[in-house]
Parts: sequence; C-alpha cells; structure tokens
Amino acid sequence: MTDSILIHNCTLAVTAADTLREDGWLLTRGDTIAAIGTADTRTQAETTEATTIIDAQGKMLAPGLINGHNHCAMTLFRGLADDLELAAWLTEHIFPAEAAHVNEEMVYHCSKLAAAEMILSGTTSVADGYFFEGQAARAFVDSGMRAVAAQGVIDFPAPGVPDPAGNLEAAARFLDEWQDRNPRITPAIFAHSPYTCSAATLQGAKRMAMERQVPFFIHAAESRQEQEMIREPRGTSPVRHLAALGLLDPDTICIHGIWLDEEDLDLLAQSRAGVIVCPQSHLKLASGIAPVSAMLKRNIRVGLGTDGCASNNSLDMFREMDILSKTQKLHTLEATSLSARQALRCATSSNAEILGLGKTGQLLPGYKADLILLDMQQPHLSPCYNQDLLVYGASGADVRSVIIDGRLVMHDKKILSFDVEDTMREVRRLAGAICEHQGRNRG
Amino acid sequence: MTDSILIHNCTLAVTAADTLREDGWLLTRGDTIAAIGTADTRTQAETTEATTIIDAQGKMLAPGLINGHNHCAMTLFRGLADDLELAAWLTEHIFPAEAAHVNEEMVYHCSKLAAAEMILSGTTSVADGYFFEGQAARAFVDSGMRAVAAQGVIDFPAPGVPDPAGNLEAAARFLDEWQDRNPRITPAIFAHSPYTCSAATLQGAKRMAMERQVPFFIHAAESRQEQEMIREPRGTSPVRHLAALGLLDPDTICIHGIWLDEEDLDLLAQSRAGVIVCPQSHLKLASGIAPVSAMLKRNIRVGLGTDGCASNNSLDMFREMDILSKTQKLHTLEATSLSARQALRCATSSNAEILGLGKTGQLLPGYKADLILLDMQQPHLSPCYNQDLLVYGASGADVRSVIIDGRLVMHDKKILSFDVEDTMREVRRLAGAICEHQGRNRG
Repeated sequence: MTDSILIHNCTLAVTAADTLREDGWLLTRGDTIAAIGTADTRTQAETTEATTIIDAQGKMLAPGLINGHNHCAMTLFRGLADDLELAAWLTEHIFPAEAAHVNEEMVYHCSKLAAAEMILSGTTSVADGYFFEGQAARAFVDSGMRAVAAQGVIDFPAPGVPDPAGNLEAAARFLDEWQDRNPRITPAIFAHSPYTCSAATLQGAKRMAMERQVPFFIHAAESRQEQEMIREPRGTSPVRHLAALGLLDPDTICIHGIWLDEEDLDLLAQSRAGVIVCPQSHLKLASGIAPVSAMLKRNIRVGLGTDGCASNNSLDMFREMDILSKTQKLHTLEATSLSARQALRCATSSNAEILGLGKTGQLLPGYKADLILLDMQQPHLSPCYNQDLLVYGASGADVRSVIIDGRLVMHDKKILSFDVEDTMREVRRLAGAICEHQGRNRG
Repeated sequence: MTDSILIHNCTLAVTAADTLREDGWLLTRGDTIAAIGTADTRTQAETTEATTIIDAQGKMLAPGLINGHNHCAMTLFRGLADDLELAAWLTEHIFPAEAAHVNEEMVYHCSKLAAAEMILSGTTSVADGYFFEGQAARAFVDSGMRAVAAQGVIDFPAPGVPDPAGNLEAAARFLDEWQDRNPRITPAIFAHSPYTCSAATLQGAKRMAMERQVPFFIHAAESRQEQEMIREPRGTSPVRHLAALGLLDPDTICIHGIWLDEEDLDLLAQSRAGVIVCPQSHLKLASGIAPVSAMLKRNIRVGLGTDGCASNNSLDMFREMDILSKTQKLHTLEATSLSARQALRCATSSNAEILGLGKTGQLLPGYKADLILLDMQQPHLSPCYNQDLLVYGASGADVRSVIIDGRLVMHDKKILSFDVEDTMREVRRLAGAICEHQGRNRG
C-alpha cells in the first residue's frame, strides 16, 4: 500500500490564487500531492485512502519553503565573528577557521544541524554549496530533506582539496558518487566566484556541469571590492566577465547579484540565468541591496536564500522573506516595490524553477508533497486577514508539522527523522574544540 | 513575607560586561533584583529567602526588552493594508479604519493582545501612544506589563476626542486619572506630529507635560513628504521647527528621526532629547533608515521600538534589534557601524533611560526585576559563542519565562497573568466586524 496523508480542517495558503481558503484538505499519495480542496469537495474516498490523518484545525497549510542558498556546515561558525567587513570576516576569521576545523565529520554533523534548524522553521528543500559535499548530501538524506548539493570549486587550497589543481577532479568524483543515487538529492557544482577561480577553472567547471546536466552555481556581484578585483585585470564587471566566458545560461545560478548595472541586468535577462539573493547576509556584511524589483520587472528569474548562517545568522526563511520585501521598499523608497506575495513566490515556486526541482513549491495536484503546517492561533498571528501574514507576521517558530516527499519528518515541533539532541551534542563538541584552539592562539 | 524568586543554573547575559557567565544565579526581592552571581558566590541564604526557585538549566537570563514605541491597539489592523505608501496607507486605510472601529472596548482588548504578543516574545516594558489611552493603561495593568502610556493629541477629530479643540483637556483628564495610580504605569502625552498639530497645540501639550513632569512624545522626521509639509509653510526642517517652539529637552522623545541633517543632529545632541527608531516600520513604509550610528557618535540618546504592528507587522523586539544592527551596516556600507551589543543596549538600558523608567533594563542589584529566560538548547541557537546570538540568532519565540516587577507573568511559554485565549477571541470578533464592514463597503 502506498503511504498517503490526509490533512484536513486547515486554511490553505494557495499562492497561485493569492487567496486564503478555509476548511481546506489535501491528500498525498507517495511523494506527491494527489488532491486538494475545500470541505464541500471532499468525499469518503480521501479518508479511505489515507494511511495517516492529520486534523489541522487552526493551522495554515503552505508549501514548504525552499532555501536557495546556504553553506549548511557553517552552522559551526554561527556567531564566531560578527560585525566585521566582508574581507576581514573572510580572510581573518572564516577562512582560517575553515582551514583548521572543516573535515568530513564536521560537514556531516554541522549540515545535519542546519537541516534540523531548517526543518523546524518550515524549509523543506535547500541548495547547499560547500566542500566534502558528499557528507552534506549524506546529512540531507539522513534528515529527510530535499537538496541540491553542490561541491565547491576554488583555486585555493580547500577542505578536502589541498591542491587546487585537483578541484575539478574532486567535483567529478562527487558527481560520480551522487548522480542518480537518491531521488531527493540533486548533485551540482559550485564555482566559488569570478575572483577566486581562473577563467580556465570556471570554464572547466561549467563544461562539466553541462556534460553531466547538473546545475552550476557561482557567487557573483556581491561587493564593491569584488567589482574592483574584476575590473582591475579584466576591465569589466563580474557579470560581463561570466558572460564573456560563456557561463550564463538557464542552468547557471548567480548568487547575490547586488552590484549590477543596466548591461549586467540585460545579460541576466537574455541568458535566463537565475539569481538567488540573500538579503540578510547582504545587510550583515554591508554588501548592499540586490535590485530585485528591477530584476523582476525584466523577468529575470529571482530566488531567495539565507546564505551560510555565519553571515545571517539564522536559517529561517520566513525572516528572509520579510526582509526581502522590506529592503526592496527601502531600496526604491516605494512601499509598493515588492509585495509579500512576490516574496513568498521567490521562496517557493521561483526557487523551485531556478534550482531545477521540477514540480515543487506549490499546493497543486501532481506537485511534490513538500508541505508545512503553521499554528495560526497565536497572539502575534491574530487577526489574520490574508496570507501576507506569512511574510510580515509569521516566523519559523510557528511551524508545527513538516512533510517532505510525502513523509512526515516533523510533527508537533518534534523532528521524527533523526535524533536532533545527538546532533547538537556533536556540534557543541566541535565548537568546544574551536574555543580551545582560539584560547591557545590567544595565549 | 516579601515574594522572592531564585533563578539558578542559567547563563547570564550581562550587557554591562559584554560577557557571558555560566552557572549564574539571580535573586529577586519584591520588585527588585536583590543579588546576582555565579555558582561560586552563592550561599544558603539565597535558597532560604526564595519563595520560588526556578532551575534554568540550558537557559539564558537576560534583562526584559523594552519596546520604545508602539500603538498597541493597532494589533486589530495587523495585515489589513500592506505594501502601500505611507500617505495612502494612513489616509485611505488606517485613518478610516480607526474612525470606524476604534472605541474603548477595542483599545482595551487589542492592547491586551499586544501585551500577550510582547510578553510571549520577551518584552517587559512598552511605551505606547494612542487614543482612549486609559483603556490601554488598564490592559497593561491587567497583563502585568510595565508601560509608559501616552494619550494622543492631534488637531483632527480622533477616537474619543471628536472635537480637536478638546484634545488637551482629554490629555489632562487622562493624566488626572493615571498619575500616581499604579507603580508600573507612567502616564504621558503624545503629540502626533509637527504636521498634524499646530504650534499652539504642540506648545500647550509640552507645557502640560512639563507641569505634570511626564514624558512628551512626538513623531518627527519620518518621511520625505513630512519634510515638504513642514518646509512649505515654515521654511525649515521638522526638528528645527520643534526646537524653535522650545519643545526639545531631555523629557522630549522624538519618534523615528530618519530625515535629519547635520543641524538637526546638533539640535538633538545639544537638547539631550531622546530619539526612538523603528527600523522595520521604516523599511515597510519605505521611509528610509535613521542615521543611528551617526547619532550614537554624537552621544544622542537612541532607543528602539517596533511601531504599531500595522506597519511592521510584528512586535518582536528580537527581530527589531537584528534589523536595527543590519540596516545600520547597510546605511553606512560598513559592517562595523552598529554592533549586536549596541543594538541590545538600545532595546534595554538606553530605552529605560530615555523613557524615564529609572533602574530598569540591566541585570544589576537594585534594578527592577524585569527578566526573561531563553531556551538556548535549540538547533538555531547552537553553538553559542557569545551573547550576540541574542540579536542575530534568537527570536521572541525562544523566550520561555518572563518576570516583570518581580512577578512571574509567563512560565514555560504560558502567560499566567490573564486569559490569552479570551483576548484572542475578543479581537477575532472585532476583526470579523471589520471584514463585514469592508464587505458592505465593497458590495
């Protein structure tokens, strides 16, 4: 018998219709949404088929959120170095900490901690990029999440790739290991940036991604300093540099996209490359504001992510949607420039499309059963006039139950797929080692 | 016997020392913090004196947050009109809704709903400004909160003051009723703004506040439109207008303070007037970013508030601290411009000082026992290297227990001081009336 979950008595947040529907129900069959409706359209058949029935009285059912950009293992560095400029943050704190503390065990446990945080806050899919990415993929499999897991490529010695000459081979080995292995895991390649990878590395990485038909990610146009670092030797912008190398196409995903001029925007629009923005990281590192409403006006495909939690420091996508919408209002000084509903789409259906997740991120029959239930009977969510409250009022802490790929992975705020206490213990042990190491360095 | 609470086994967030102290304990006596220390300094005397003992293993003890600006009753309008320009939002949505739906009963229940949201998210004091403010004060008394409750004064017909000629008399009656009535309630006067009050009204309101020795609030320098509205008839800026009228002194609190030039900053610094900023409201209404780091450099006293939740739409001061720090980094494009610890001070000790709350907002003996306990044993708060995590990682949902004025008003996320379900029911009923009214208007 195929597993089937019936959720009933809920409010439906149907982003396609931009409306709330009360007395809703939804039936999953295997990994898919089989049917959805309101009380008047329900028959005995749904109850008969269901192997699990959830009475969701007082709760809102929404598509699981998709985190379009994360470095999951960096949970270990959460709060280790705050309130610093990007360059100092990276070169004086994050890169040294990574050199000393990143290993296979660390990536597994710390990615699993990120998965716990994401599931608890209603995120059902993540696009991750890091090193030892096989361990991150293993953590996503064990936690029950859906993920695009991208192996990092950089022309510097990196965790697991001490000699950068071997960075593409390492990526190839990762793809060999993870392609067609688990239906919830899409392996991919993450070239770090135009300023840390040579033209040959970038083109080699993109060629491999095309041959293997996997997504290709790259950080681009994040900071003013990056602009200078590209302009000096190349006489052009980061995005024009990528375009000139033939890297922009619908399977390339540019992360950040803050410092863009008109010509850059034209190139992104023409190429159909995706852009994932991370507004809280952009604020915290003083990078700027990505011109999202301008991008959406040009039909550039824009998604949303949290970035690694060392530069945020939260993986709560509700918070991220809220800040996306609010910072766009600031950027344009127009309160109408990006609505709550547009922010919700960036974090669900747009992310799904950009990341190549297929039918994911919407409450529609035939779509993946990636679902969340939020408790709306709380003071801070009262009254509820419409689903904009998901963006401006709700937070991840309001999520009570999570279904991924048709499987209940969290219920009543308890993660069912793995032992979270055990993961927190492992990460605390690793954090203790960092404190000891820093103590020694200071002493 | 005086009530006394002993909290032990907690981590202490001591903002004065900017450090974390493990194995902490704190003893309250009546409404005051009697003693604080770590395990090595504890004696049997503390256990003997305590009438209640709380084992706070895995929790962090912090001063209760202070919300420096709110229109509490506006919880009723949460999400009623999002993604709109300030002028359209006010004149087409909020003012008509207020005209139709604000009455004594509404202010009581909706302020109590705000109190529930604030207590649940770790806010122990609030500075409120609205009409029928006596009902708001009653809600704060009944909920157990500490509050500065300010009666609104405006030269337009307002709830409870149909003829603006009577606005100062209404304020005087409110002060008569609430001065020296309850140790947790400080009554005050809130003149709406330089563009909605005549010079005579502003000076009359300030004179009354001075005579009665109560705080005087005014919205000022919020939007570009306001600048124009003042510059046209007066040829000057909002802050210079207030200064010229003799309104700026240490007992005047300017709310917003976004559009300030060098001369405005000088006037604020010289006068020692307080400024309360509301960064999320400033983003959502596309007003701008207040120059907080510039103000702090000039020793201007800056505090933090959420604004009414129709323009935020959350009353979670943790979220507000996070966004304060992050938007300052953006504003200056320097990630060092405002630290997590400065944000924490704005929301605690600075707010206490500006609002005239005396010894409140710090974990020190002799200070008011306004305390919160946060559950730190959660994935999104792991690992914890320092107390910056309160700003960049925590949210109001992490607060487990709240003590105000030495009284336990929330424990294990359950509010003990009043029936929150009952309040939510009342507000839902009022919201239902708004939907019906709007339906009629549409139909």
